[in-house]
Amino acid sequence: MQKYKVALCQLSVSPDRDRNIARARARVEAAADAGAKLEIWSCPYSMETLRSYAEDIDGGDSASISMLSEVAAARKITVIGGSIPEAASGKVFNTCCVIGPDGQIVAKHRKLHLFEIDVPGDITLKESDTFTGGQEPTVVDTDVGRIGIGICHDIRFPELAMLYRSRGAHLICYPSAFNISTGQLLWDLMQKCRYLFMQLSDWHCFPFPIPLYPPTSSGLLTISSTEISWFQLFVATCSPARDPNAKSDYMIWGHSSLIGPFGEVLATAGHEEATVIGEIDLSMIQSTRENLPLEVQSRGDLYRLVDVQRVTD
Amino acid sequence: MQKYKVALCQLSVSPDRDRNIARARARVEAAADAGAKLEIWSCPYSMETLRSYAEDIDGGDSASISMLSEVAAARKITVIGGSIPEAASGKVFNTCCVIGPDGQIVAKHRKLHLFEIDVPGDITLKESDTFTGGQEPTVVDTDVGRIGIGICHDIRFPELAMLYRSRGAHLICYPSAFNISTGQLLWDLMQKCRYLFMQLSDWHCFPFPIPLYPPTSSGLLTISSTEISWFQLFVATCSPARDPNAKSDYMIWGHSSLIGPFGEVLATAGHEEATVIGEIDLSMIQSTRENLPLEVQSRGDLYRLVDVQRVTD
Repeated sequence: MQKYKVALCQLSVSPDRDRNIARARARVEAAADAGAKLEIWSCPYSMETLRSYAEDIDGGDSASISMLSEVAAARKITVIGGSIPEAASGKVFNTCCVIGPDGQIVAKHRKLHLFEIDVPGDITLKESDTFTGGQEPTVVDTDVGRIGIGICHDIRFPELAMLYRSRGAHLICYPSAFNISTGQLLWDLMQKCRYLFMQLSDWHCFPFPIPLYPPTSSGLLTISSTEISWFQLFVATCSPARDPNAKSDYMIWGHSSLIGPFGEVLATAGHEEATVIGEIDLSMIQSTRENLPLEVQSRGDLYRLVDVQRVTD
Repeated sequence: MQKYKVALCQLSVSPDRDRNIARARARVEAAADAGAKLEIWSCPYSMETLRSYAEDIDGGDSASISMLSEVAAARKITVIGGSIPEAASGKVFNTCCVIGPDGQIVAKHRKLHLFEIDVPGDITLKESDTFTGGQEPTVVDTDVGRIGIGICHDIRFPELAMLYRSRGAHLICYPSAFNISTGQLLWDLMQKCRYLFMQLSDWHCFPFPIPLYPPTSSGLLTISSTEISWFQLFVATCSPARDPNAKSDYMIWGHSSLIGPFGEVLATAGHEEATVIGEIDLSMIQSTRENLPLEVQSRGDLYRLVDVQRVTD
């Protein structure tokens, strides 16, 4: 499939798993009915409760994945199944399943880079208290192209994207649940310059305020168009919607987006519940690389990225 | 020196080299008098005429570098000497000299990544017709810290920045002359949302319009805060000022900026002639890396960047 529609389901998420699954099913089905061939959705994120939501995917005891398999098979679509806590061998992983149009799991990515931050008096978060990191990068061939998977903090490491590029990925999908800064900093800023925010591929937000600098120069991190345009492939990110009434400090950023190989925003959302629909035209990858042959211009004589597992496999 | 002022001299540039040098001298001297310890400035960029401006730096026949050496020694400052065409062994390089407070050249960086773009019917530019690429990355110890140098298109290759980081750089300086898109696309956008532009580390601009998408989602590339914040060091970019009356298609972007290790914009300019003054506090590098230990979180078991010359040296 050279050209197809992608739907990014940015879902409202509550502590009630059954409600979340039902809501996700309705959204994914609706998007498939609207012609989308590839969908990603996302799930709740709270260090306190994540373990209690863990599902045994390999053991076939996962309500979330069962639902996605059913919908994928019924609608004949490929689904990037957001990320859910996975229980396996007494550990908990942050896991994303890729499900093919026959309903089978074709790949399972376990988050590789666990988030850990410590700004004394402000925010402290240590995912490794809850999660175990995965052991391998995930690139999978689907009927909508070769897809690399990363989860949330995985996006902060350009080496992973480089490695996916070198393995021939057309698209990298990052189910993510970035937060907004604690307090009003970014929220205020956002109210004031909605226009600004609509321009940006701002689905990545700095997880804490930077007290030294005024709001205009802080807080907001974008995964750079530059960075993505270097890779010259498509990138899709999918976040949960923000719940402005949530009691948690961890306010979701939203802004699920589809980015093209020039680094341009093809489709994006605000922070409300939304289904973002964009189109992927795989031929753009080749034309971009012909127009601006960054690979040819790079200097393999000076630096080289080693894909460790490929070397040792 | 743990804490010091940096001045980025964003200069108006004309075809008259003597005038440019005099103007640069005045700006650099004024910034030094204002307390800046480190300065970078930039030079004209036109494929048609660059060769004719080439100066023989090694042979001691370079009016630009002589001026910088004099000022550096007189004011006891470190100067990152923008980039000038350098004639050497019958070739022309795009070269940046680092000059110490004694007036001596302490490092010379020759642009590694030559820019080449071909969008039929729109823009075609091939630097390799004029320039020869350099042969080595440049990291130099100065009294204001360890500095890595890149020129313009060098910034597009995250591996170079990674390599500088791994060699212990505190600051990367990129003298650059990015252009605005041909036509009104970005110019219009900029007039309309000056506020937007003031927020961004927008000194990097896509070199051609993307006809498929509306202005709001195109054109503008930022070197991402994400990318820079991954490196957790300082980045300074310095561009010439824009000449709105220039006959060339190549309209300069401007927006010289100093970016901190969180990815935050510490100081920036518009496109007019300006001296951007910002402060570097080297202790922020360590505190950022302690707060958010990205290096610890990275997965050397999955990928590794090889610094080729270091391995073979």
